[in-house]
Amino acid sequence: MSDKRREGEQLHLGAFLYFTGHHHAGWRHPDSGVEAMFDIANYVRMARTAERGKFDMIFFADLLHLIYPTHAAAGMMDPIALLSAISTATERIGLTATMSTTYNEPYNAARKFATLDHISGGRAGWNIVTSQTDAEARNFGRDRHPEHGVRYRMAEEFVEVVASLWDSWDDGGLVMDRQSGIFADAAKLRPVDYDGSWYSAHGTLNVPRPPQGYPVLIQAGSSEPGQAFAARVAEVIFTAQPHVEAARSFYAVMKGKLAEAGRRPGSLHIMPGLSPILGSTEEEARRRERELLDLIRPEEASGFLSGMLQFDLSGYPPDGPLPDIPDPVEASNGMKSRVQLIMDLARKDGLSILELGRRLLGARGHLQFVGTPEKLADLIEDWFRSSACDGFNIMPPVLPGDLDTFVDEVVPILQRRGLFRREYESRTLRGHLGLERPAAGALGARPAGRPAAAQASGLLAE
Amino acid sequence: MSDKRREGEQLHLGAFLYFTGHHHAGWRHPDSGVEAMFDIANYVRMARTAERGKFDMIFFADLLHLIYPTHAAAGMMDPIALLSAISTATERIGLTATMSTTYNEPYNAARKFATLDHISGGRAGWNIVTSQTDAEARNFGRDRHPEHGVRYRMAEEFVEVVASLWDSWDDGGLVMDRQSGIFADAAKLRPVDYDGSWYSAHGTLNVPRPPQGYPVLIQAGSSEPGQAFAARVAEVIFTAQPHVEAARSFYAVMKGKLAEAGRRPGSLHIMPGLSPILGSTEEEARRRERELLDLIRPEEASGFLSGMLQFDLSGYPPDGPLPDIPDPVEASNGMKSRVQLIMDLARKDGLSILELGRRLLGARGHLQFVGTPEKLADLIEDWFRSSACDGFNIMPPVLPGDLDTFVDEVVPILQRRGLFRREYESRTLRGHLGLERPAAGALGARPAGRPAAAQASGLLAE
Repeated sequence: MSDKRREGEQLHLGAFLYFTGHHHAGWRHPDSGVEAMFDIANYVRMARTAERGKFDMIFFADLLHLIYPTHAAAGMMDPIALLSAISTATERIGLTATMSTTYNEPYNAARKFATLDHISGGRAGWNIVTSQTDAEARNFGRDRHPEHGVRYRMAEEFVEVVASLWDSWDDGGLVMDRQSGIFADAAKLRPVDYDGSWYSAHGTLNVPRPPQGYPVLIQAGSSEPGQAFAARVAEVIFTAQPHVEAARSFYAVMKGKLAEAGRRPGSLHIMPGLSPILGSTEEEARRRERELLDLIRPEEASGFLSGMLQFDLSGYPPDGPLPDIPDPVEASNGMKSRVQLIMDLARKDGLSILELGRRLLGARGHLQFVGTPEKLADLIEDWFRSSACDGFNIMPPVLPGDLDTFVDEVVPILQRRGLFRREYESRTLRGHLGLERPAAGALGARPAGRPAAAQASGLLAE
Repeated sequence: MSDKRREGEQLHLGAFLYFTGHHHAGWRHPDSGVEAMFDIANYVRMARTAERGKFDMIFFADLLHLIYPTHAAAGMMDPIALLSAISTATERIGLTATMSTTYNEPYNAARKFATLDHISGGRAGWNIVTSQTDAEARNFGRDRHPEHGVRYRMAEEFVEVVASLWDSWDDGGLVMDRQSGIFADAAKLRPVDYDGSWYSAHGTLNVPRPPQGYPVLIQAGSSEPGQAFAARVAEVIFTAQPHVEAARSFYAVMKGKLAEAGRRPGSLHIMPGLSPILGSTEEEARRRERELLDLIRPEEASGFLSGMLQFDLSGYPPDGPLPDIPDPVEASNGMKSRVQLIMDLARKDGLSILELGRRLLGARGHLQFVGTPEKLADLIEDWFRSSACDGFNIMPPVLPGDLDTFVDEVVPILQRRGLFRREYESRTLRGHLGLERPAAGALGARPAGRPAAAQASGLLAE
C-alpha cells in the first residue's frame, strides 16, 4: 500500500465485547466462552487481550429487554458493573458503556459515569442511546417507546442535565485540606438549575468533576436527528456501514456537519462496526464462515427473515427460493426499500430462504469480512486512507476466540504499516483518541429556555 | 464472660465503608485515606482488610445529593460501581450496596443487582432505602420528597417488581446447550405482568436469576412503616441503637413481628451500627476521641446544633452553656423530644455549645465505643448474648486506619471467645449469614391487586 493520504495519522480501534460474539450463533462455536459468560474472569481476560492489542477502548452494548431467548444476548449484564469490575484489572484501555437516555435518570447517569471515570483514572466513555422498542417501554411501565424525534429531543435535554451535573464542581472544587478542614470549596460548587420539558434538576452532584471533564461521548444514531445530535455532542460515532462508498459519503457528510457546528475535524471520530471472520487462507476463512452459518438453526433463520419482510415464510420450503414478497400493508418507505434490498440480494446470489435468513441474521447489518489477516489489514488501511472512517469498532463473531486472533494476527500488521500505535501514549480514553478535555460549561449548563443551537459552538471549545 | 446464652451461635459483622470514616472530621485525621478517596485501590485495600477479618460483608451507603461540602461524604461514588470493582479483587466477602427505591427504575435495579450477584458469584446484598430529603427530590426534578408512608408503599411495590423480574427466569432457565442451539429454555421464562400504583413492568429480565436467587435484602428503617416492611421483606436490619436496653427491646419487637409474618427467627439478622474508637489503654482511646472531636470545626459544630434544635445559636458564645431552647414552632412530638434529649445531655455532662455540637456531629446517633479492644469485645459479647443484636455493622471513625485496628485487635478476641468465624465456610453472602436461598415467587410475582399481606408468609419459604 503506497497511499500517502492521512500519513502520520493513526487509526482507532474499539473492541465490542458482545458477550459470546456478534455472530447470531457464535455462542455455539467451540471458540466461544459461553459457559463462562456470567464469570467476570471471562470479560477481564478479553479486556486484557484488547489492552495487549493497544485498542483505544472496549465497548459494551445495552438493551433493556430480553431479545431472542435462543441467543446469548438474552443474558446481557449491566455495562457499568462489568466495566467497573474490569477497571481494576486493566491499566490503560478505555471503558465504554452504553446507557439509554430514555429509561434512566440524569442524576443517576451522571454519578455512575463520574464514578467509573474516577475509579478508572479517566478511562470512561458513554455510548448515548435512546433505546429502540416498545418491549423496552413495557419493562419500564410505559405502553409505547417514544417516537424517534421526541427521543432525540429528550436525549439532548438528558445530556445537557448530565453535563451540567458534571460541571457542578469546578475542576478546583476538590480541596481536601486536612489542615483547614475544607473538603470542598463551596465557592467552586455550581448547583444546577435546569428546568426542561422532560428532565429537571436543581442541585449539585455528589461526585467531583470526572478526571476527563466529561467521559468521552459516543453516539450511534445514523438517522437525521441522530446525525444532528452527533454533530453537536458526539466525539465518536459507531455506525453500521457495510459498503465503502456509502461509508465515505457518510464520513464526508458528518465531518461537514461537524464544521457547521464549529467543531474541528479531529474532535469526532467515525468508527464503523467490522466483523472479521479470519483464516490463515481464504479457504479456511470461508470454511469458518460456513461453519458459523450452519450453526444458525433453520427455524430461527426463516423466522428472522419473516420478521424482516413482515411476511410469513413458514409455509415455504427452507431450501427453496424466496417467493415474491408483496409490499407490507401500511409500510414506511424505509420498510419498502428494505424488502426490495432483501429480494435483490436473494436473486443476485441465488440464495434459498434458509441461506438468506442465515446471512442476514449472521451479519446484523454491519461490515463483515471473510479472509486472511493480511487482506483484512488491506481493507482497514483502504477504508482509513480513503476517509471512509477513522478506525473501526471490531465485532468478533465468536468471543473470546476471534478477538485473540485479531490481536495476535491483524494488529501487528497494522502496527508494521504505521497505522496503529505500538504502545499507549496516554492513560485516559481522551488521550488515546486525541480529544481535548472539555472546559466546564462546554455542554449543557445553559439557562433554561436558551435554544440548543446557541450552545453548540461552545462544545469542547479549546 | 461465662454467659452461656446463644452458645454455639456466631455473630455477624459488616464493615460500613463510609469513604474516609464515619466521624464527621475523620477525614482530617492522619490515619484517613482522604487523598486516595477517588482511587479504587483504597477501597480494594479496605475490602481485603475486612475479608482478612472474615467479615460477612462490606457495605456502602448511598445519598442522592451533596451533603456538607465540608465533609468527605460530599464525594460519594456510586456503590454498584465500587462493589463491582472490588468484586474482582476479593473472593468471599459479601458486597452490599444501598439503592433508593424512590429514585430508580425497578428494571434497572433488578439488572444491576443481578449483575453484581453473577459477577461476584453470589455475594451481593441490597440495602433498600427510600431516601430522605427534598434535596434529593430536587436533583430528580421533583419539588418534594414523598411523605414517609407513601415512600414505604412505593418501596413495597418496587421490591415486588424487582423480585418478580429476578424470578422471570426459573433457576433452570439458563441452558446454554451448544449442541441443540438452545440458550434459554423459553418454557422457563416467566414474563412479569405487574401493574402497580407507582411501578409497572411487563417483560422478562435480560439477566438470568441471580446465583443467590435474590441478593440478600437489607433494610434500615426504624419507623413503624419501616419495621413493618422489614418484618415482611428484610433479611438484615441495620439500625441506630445507642443504648443496650432500647436495642434489646427493638430486637424483641422485631423478632416478634417476624414470627407474626410467619418467618423463622434466623431469617432476619439485626445489626446495629457500632463506631469504635480504640486505644491500647483507656487513656489512649480517650485521647483519640478528643483528637477527633477537636478536628470538628467550631462553626460546623454550632451550625449543626442550631439545625438539630431549629434554634440559631450563632449569637451565643461557643464555650458557654446551651441556653434554654424554646419548643420549635409547629414542632412534631419527635422534634420536641429531640430538643429535650439534647438539653438533658448538655445539662447532665455540663457541655458547652461547641462540645455538645461536636459530640452530636461525631457520633451521628449510633453506638459509639471508646476504650480498649478487650473492653469492646466485652460490649459486643454482652449485646450479642443478651439478644440486643445478631452482630454489628462496624462504622470505623477513621478509614482505613480504624478498620485495620478492628481487624487486627478486636476480631482475634472475638474468634478466641468462639463468637466469630475463623474461616469462611461459604462462598455466598447468604451462606455467611445462614440464610435460605429463596424459591422463585417467594417475594413479589403476585397477581396485580392481591394484597401484600397474603404474600408475606411466602417469603423465603423453606
